[in-house]
Amino acid sequence: MVQAAKVLGDKWTLCILREAFYGVKRFDDMLADLELPKAALSGRLATLVEEGLLEKSMYQEPGHRKRAAYVLTQKGRDAAPILVALMNWGQAHVLKAPGATHLVTKSAGKPVKQAFVLEGQETVARDDLSLKVDLEG
Amino acid sequence: MVQAAKVLGDKWTLCILREAFYGVKRFDDMLADLELPKAALSGRLATLVEEGLLEKSMYQEPGHRKRAAYVLTQKGRDAAPILVALMNWGQAHVLKAPGATHLVTKSAGKPVKQAFVLEGQETVARDDLSLKVDLEG
Repeated sequence: MVQAAKVLGDKWTLCILREAFYGVKRFDDMLADLELPKAALSGRLATLVEEGLLEKSMYQEPGHRKRAAYVLTQKGRDAAPILVALMNWGQAHVLKAPGATHLVTKSAGKPVKQAFVLEGQETVARDDLSLKVDLEG
Repeated sequence: MVQAAKVLGDKWTLCILREAFYGVKRFDDMLADLELPKAALSGRLATLVEEGLLEKSMYQEPGHRKRAAYVLTQKGRDAAPILVALMNWGQAHVLKAPGATHLVTKSAGKPVKQAFVLEGQETVARDDLSLKVDLEG
């Protein structure tokens, strides 16, 4: 837990990971979404690559210079329960807006919750999770 | 999530919360368990009280001076899923020792996991959770 907190216990690192879960891959897109200093984004991305949560690859669009893209590794994807737990707690106790964003199944749109269940009980596959943001209220 | 990370994104803060979940209440006991500088413990406890995760109370044993004790509030107890998620991830990907500690039901000792499940599905109550530490291997 201590080791995990050392890697993930940083506001920007978590925001970058959340971007990655949303499917944002490009440095410039993250920069635009997060509005953090360029050096801060570079630094956090380097740490996330070093720690094995993101994998860096290069891509090049016709007529443009080579650019970096970042994709979640298995280790990065496995951090999803941490982000969801932080999100739930923040909504309930910091924003005081429980239910502002909901987890649903991607396949059928059914409401999903993070919970403690008995081993062997049926669960929703990570690939079938989607985040629904309630824009009302 | 950002707000939650601001409060909880600190190694020592998480360790102190974990102590509280284990039932450790006294300043001196936490100090002995965590081996952190006294000022660091004081500071983190003050923040946790200020942020509403712990409640400070005073107690006095016969022949001793008054001492401080710290108990989890609802907001603090609700952080349990975050600690479990960090613990699971750390065991799997940092310590590379998945299953070194297990969640079990307090009542029957049945294995419990943290998971995503459909809303309405039966879950294990927070009060019925217990942490089992595997000392082998």
